[in-house]
Amino acid sequence: MLVVMQAHATDEQVRAVCQKIESLGYRAHSIPGTQRTAIGITGNQGEVEAGTLEEMPGVQEVIRVSKPYKLVSRDLKEENTVIGFSGTQATFGGRNLAIIAGPCAIESREQALAIAERVCRAGAQFFRGGAYKPRTSPYTFQGLGEEGLRIMAEIRDRFGMKIVTEAIDNESLELVEQYADVIQIGARNMQNFSLLKRAGRTKKPVLLKRGMSATLEEFLMAAEYIMSEGNYRVVLCERGVRTFADHTRNTLDLSVVPAVQRLSHLPIVVDPSHGTGKRNKVTPLSRAAVAVGADGLIVEVHNQPDKALSDGMQSLYPEQFEELMAQVRQIAVVLGRAIFPIRADVQVVKSSAAQVGPQPLAQ
Amino acid sequence: MLVVMQAHATDEQVRAVCQKIESLGYRAHSIPGTQRTAIGITGNQGEVEAGTLEEMPGVQEVIRVSKPYKLVSRDLKEENTVIGFSGTQATFGGRNLAIIAGPCAIESREQALAIAERVCRAGAQFFRGGAYKPRTSPYTFQGLGEEGLRIMAEIRDRFGMKIVTEAIDNESLELVEQYADVIQIGARNMQNFSLLKRAGRTKKPVLLKRGMSATLEEFLMAAEYIMSEGNYRVVLCERGVRTFADHTRNTLDLSVVPAVQRLSHLPIVVDPSHGTGKRNKVTPLSRAAVAVGADGLIVEVHNQPDKALSDGMQSLYPEQFEELMAQVRQIAVVLGRAIFPIRADVQVVKSSAAQVGPQPLAQ
Amino acid sequence: MLVVMQAHATDEQVRAVCQKIESLGYRAHSIPGTQRTAIGITGNQGEVEAGTLEEMPGVQEVIRVSKPYKLVSRDLKEENTVIGFSGTQATFGGRNLAIIAGPCAIESREQALAIAERVCRAGAQFFRGGAYKPRTSPYTFQGLGEEGLRIMAEIRDRFGMKIVTEAIDNESLELVEQYADVIQIGARNMQNFSLLKRAGRTKKPVLLKRGMSATLEEFLMAAEYIMSEGNYRVVLCERGVRTFADHTRNTLDLSVVPAVQRLSHLPIVVDPSHGTGKRNKVTPLSRAAVAVGADGLIVEVHNQPDKALSDGMQSLYPEQFEELMAQVRQIAVVLGRAIFPIRADVQVVKSSAAQVGPQPLAQ
Amino acid sequence: MLVVMQAHATDEQVRAVCQKIESLGYRAHSIPGTQRTAIGITGNQGEVEAGTLEEMPGVQEVIRVSKPYKLVSRDLKEENTVIGFSGTQATFGGRNLAIIAGPCAIESREQALAIAERVCRAGAQFFRGGAYKPRTSPYTFQGLGEEGLRIMAEIRDRFGMKIVTEAIDNESLELVEQYADVIQIGARNMQNFSLLKRAGRTKKPVLLKRGMSATLEEFLMAAEYIMSEGNYRVVLCERGVRTFADHTRNTLDLSVVPAVQRLSHLPIVVDPSHGTGKRNKVTPLSRAAVAVGADGLIVEVHNQPDKALSDGMQSLYPEQFEELMAQVRQIAVVLGRAIFPIRADVQVVKSSAAQVGPQPLAQ
Repeated sequence: MLVVMQAHATDEQVRAVCQKIESLGYRAHSIPGTQRTAIGITGNQGEVEAGTLEEMPGVQEVIRVSKPYKLVSRDLKEENTVIGFSGTQATFGGRNLAIIAGPCAIESREQALAIAERVCRAGAQFFRGGAYKPRTSPYTFQGLGEEGLRIMAEIRDRFGMKIVTEAIDNESLELVEQYADVIQIGARNMQNFSLLKRAGRTKKPVLLKRGMSATLEEFLMAAEYIMSEGNYRVVLCERGVRTFADHTRNTLDLSVVPAVQRLSHLPIVVDPSHGTGKRNKVTPLSRAAVAVGADGLIVEVHNQPDKALSDGMQSLYPEQFEELMAQVRQIAVVLGRAIFPIRADVQVVKSSAAQVGPQPLAQ
Repeated sequence: MLVVMQAHATDEQVRAVCQKIESLGYRAHSIPGTQRTAIGITGNQGEVEAGTLEEMPGVQEVIRVSKPYKLVSRDLKEENTVIGFSGTQATFGGRNLAIIAGPCAIESREQALAIAERVCRAGAQFFRGGAYKPRTSPYTFQGLGEEGLRIMAEIRDRFGMKIVTEAIDNESLELVEQYADVIQIGARNMQNFSLLKRAGRTKKPVLLKRGMSATLEEFLMAAEYIMSEGNYRVVLCERGVRTFADHTRNTLDLSVVPAVQRLSHLPIVVDPSHGTGKRNKVTPLSRAAVAVGADGLIVEVHNQPDKALSDGMQSLYPEQFEELMAQVRQIAVVLGRAIFPIRADVQVVKSSAAQVGPQPLAQ
Repeated sequence: MLVVMQAHATDEQVRAVCQKIESLGYRAHSIPGTQRTAIGITGNQGEVEAGTLEEMPGVQEVIRVSKPYKLVSRDLKEENTVIGFSGTQATFGGRNLAIIAGPCAIESREQALAIAERVCRAGAQFFRGGAYKPRTSPYTFQGLGEEGLRIMAEIRDRFGMKIVTEAIDNESLELVEQYADVIQIGARNMQNFSLLKRAGRTKKPVLLKRGMSATLEEFLMAAEYIMSEGNYRVVLCERGVRTFADHTRNTLDLSVVPAVQRLSHLPIVVDPSHGTGKRNKVTPLSRAAVAVGADGLIVEVHNQPDKALSDGMQSLYPEQFEELMAQVRQIAVVLGRAIFPIRADVQVVKSSAAQVGPQPLAQ
Repeated sequence: MLVVMQAHATDEQVRAVCQKIESLGYRAHSIPGTQRTAIGITGNQGEVEAGTLEEMPGVQEVIRVSKPYKLVSRDLKEENTVIGFSGTQATFGGRNLAIIAGPCAIESREQALAIAERVCRAGAQFFRGGAYKPRTSPYTFQGLGEEGLRIMAEIRDRFGMKIVTEAIDNESLELVEQYADVIQIGARNMQNFSLLKRAGRTKKPVLLKRGMSATLEEFLMAAEYIMSEGNYRVVLCERGVRTFADHTRNTLDLSVVPAVQRLSHLPIVVDPSHGTGKRNKVTPLSRAAVAVGADGLIVEVHNQPDKALSDGMQSLYPEQFEELMAQVRQIAVVLGRAIFPIRADVQVVKSSAAQVGPQPLAQ
């Protein structure tokens, strides 16, 4: 159920409707739009009797939502959700595309800083890097844990980049929440409903990756899990699905981008690195992702891909990432969007243990 | 790496090798077989220098394992793993097939007991029922939680059945561990590595369902996660994979049964209910599962499928389950296996709130 | 549309209805059943006005068929279709399972006869062997063509086996039609509608293999193409579908057997050789196929699998086929079906260029 | 095997090598490049002894090709294949993208001409339309046959567009060969090897669509079938593959475009209409296809999609196609490619039975 308020409804009227909903034993989700506020009702098993709500001051109409998802739906919120951050103009869902770049895993401070300065300089506003890695084998590198988080915090301080990193369970989420700007939920956890609910109770935006064989509806329902707990800042991410095709690691399903945009107000980005699993496919598919209308990219970059502890085969060399940025920048323009320019102020210096990266930037 | 002890090696020699392995900073997994004991080594990133171990008393040879899984492998343990329980002859992997039956979710004490007496009478030794349900939507029935576990404990007491139920996160696992006999890890959590590790630290056997798009190797690696933490009592479960085919909910991949048996010593059972999603397909596919060589079945049975809160479409009526048992019993014989007989001592009484089921049975 | 005749309707009445249908510009398909005759109407774009037909003598009712398939449907014919052959008791769809065995391709007279005598002796009534091979590469062995057909005709004469072989285009179909007893349409041609129509105009039964990614409806529609041309003797064959799973060559979808049997009166057999692509999986999946209720098996057997020009990996040794027969024979009994016994009269002689196989059998 | 000639090798030397190859019982495929000529050898079962060829005048080296495909491979021909047509600058594989547009099926002269003038005006140089339709059901519209071909020939005369249309068997191919400029082989026939060989013996270029579940290697091998018969003008076409995803009719696999371009010199175009099956997805995926680097698009356009006899759901309105062209034109520029401009000379007139389309154009 969905209560649509009148355009001129007051905050007080909105509050009164929410209180009424809560008093009926349900949960109210007030979602302000540019034209009007809508209030999603969740927690009802069956139907809420609309009558009492429809008669309240400021209410325009009460709509029954037939789709299984409510809060992710455009029915609730017509305009695109734009997720912003303090201290930067970077957003998810805004005019500028969100470019997230970095290594698969944080392997060392030196490696992370060396990569960060390159991708920052090329125009990426978000840095990615795994501190907790969900690995197929229990015997392979599982990430540096909190040490990795600390390194990324240093990258934020030094380069002004926002940090995107994965939480794999409630314990890691608690730490990620403290250090990162965006909490990533990986493909293997897309239906780890317990983790989704926990992510729904953080204050940080969540980047939710599509599961390997998730339908569109399951993907949206996973986002609904997060939102139903009160965290409305969810970014969806297409990262390829599992099919019979064997020329790429996964099959990147770009059609899900316009499909999501039709049904939901949430931003959606594309991961061409996992989506293809092959370095030489990342740039063409990045161009395609921007052309199809994605709100951003998440790309693996490594300074020494052949020595990477994970996903080396799909990581770009920094030079390749710069070239990728140059190409997608032009495609973005065609779609009326933009990518942040090269930051010439970020000096690329020779990496050394003693002095890595440029001087800290005043934000 | 794998240390194979001589046939006549003493316990002391085994212990000494384990201590040596631990002293090198690795983890030793001693797995006794009928002929000889093998000791799996995990925790090594690269190669363990075999020399020092090979020279120890009682050691026959040190084998490098090329497969990514070690503890699940037949290389480590040639004989089938048989998982037994106190107070019953029922096993996983023994001559008798393990038949697990019950409703998708525990909905009420009355429902659960009514179903339990029917499936117990028909010869099922294990009762299944969800107390914690991983549901696609946050707004649908999520299970009764601990109350559901208590009802199942009563079923164990009353009918002598062993309880199989799902844990969906660390919190529920702690409770499930206390109440249940077998902890189920669902398909959606097959690569929830954090939960797998936690399950590896319980004392209870784990029933691990194959993920919706898991390859055989990923499936075995998930079991390896559990075993690498010290819990060697893992039962695998094929429950259908996701494909383009739309005449069933999932495509039941029975070929994975002989494939698992070739590579691993672990028992494997089949879930024809989720594997097909259609009541009228459950019995034929149960026959096929037994014929292909599965070590058991897990079947959804409901006394009122059309009123079930979940999975009603695929739940058998009790009469249908009895018929299924009659059919698979004959197929089992052809394979030199057996199914426990009908328990005529379990009286099927009219269910009532006051007096449900027969008197408790002395096992 | 479907005209159901009364139980006591005369042949003349049936003929009159057919003539009426043809005079309206449609095509009439008279399908006699044990209780009653039904007449399928095809060739109508939209709806046939039922009135005139309903009033004719002997007509019980006129049914509008909502499914896209008509002639394959159980709505048209309730009883199972049983396809028999002169000079043998072997059938498709009867009480005895149809066992088809032989090499992937006919490579030489000697090879074919050597295999034939082994599989015939073991109880197979149908011999398979490719004379025209649809190969992925234009540069690999494409079959012996008519010479292969002649060798199979000799096998029929010598052993009394019925011959099943593939036609890959109109030209080969014309020859196959002359030599074989059952015309096979391969998976790659399941939607070669031109070939299906041509097969619909032969007098020989057609074995139609499911396409690699065919849905159940597409599979049935392909059979409908054949039947719509007047050939009602169609045998369906499940041979595995293409999925992400990589432990077998294809994923054998046994659930399609009961699914077909629910919707259609046509017999369905299973090909565990292509369905798994691995020798060691063929026997377990054959057991499962019989247990699920299939009407027969088609199995690749080769006397020298490691020297086979195609599909050697999935071909059984003759001894393995004998063992397979022994096992499925027992499973068949559980389902109230049977497999023809071992033919001790077929002597297995040492193969030599001079004298291959036993003396010709009087049929 | 592959014979690479020296840069300055004479035609006579090339001819002599070809004759030598033929005299050895093989087939020689001379493929001239800008730098050098290469000669592919097919028809050899095993290995050709390289010695005699290597010693011939003008031969630089003889290379053994390890891949199963030879003639499609970049090993044979490094530069992209560009397929041109007399009387137009339109090509497949050249700087200008090949835009193919038109209805799924030719339904009538009026419909076809009305659509043709719209798509021609918008800049499409190729007109598509089915005269022979491979339909899932034998009871649905199967195409106008030769009448459809005649209508398309009129469109070529009137608008100067080149005609692309499907052949579904040898019979239709003979007619299509006479009327059309490009022969399409549909997805369902991608492994109809008999038809591929026949297409390899025509003089017209062939547009080969990827099968619904074809791997990259199978796709290239299907092209190899055509080329092995001597027709080297093959255009590949990605049209979506079959997966579990249900938000589109097929899953468009854009990664196959760079994958093909890496391995083969053949041009590849994309069909976003079948690739998505939904009108509102066609334009975004067309942008993506051009951005990923495709050599062209094949798009379904209908003047009255809701009345289309087939594929109406995925057909664009002419206005939508114009908008699509405007968008992809800009993306093409970013990739250093172009799309032919709007042809203002093609007047869009009100369609009427009497006077359809503009006056014939002098080519």
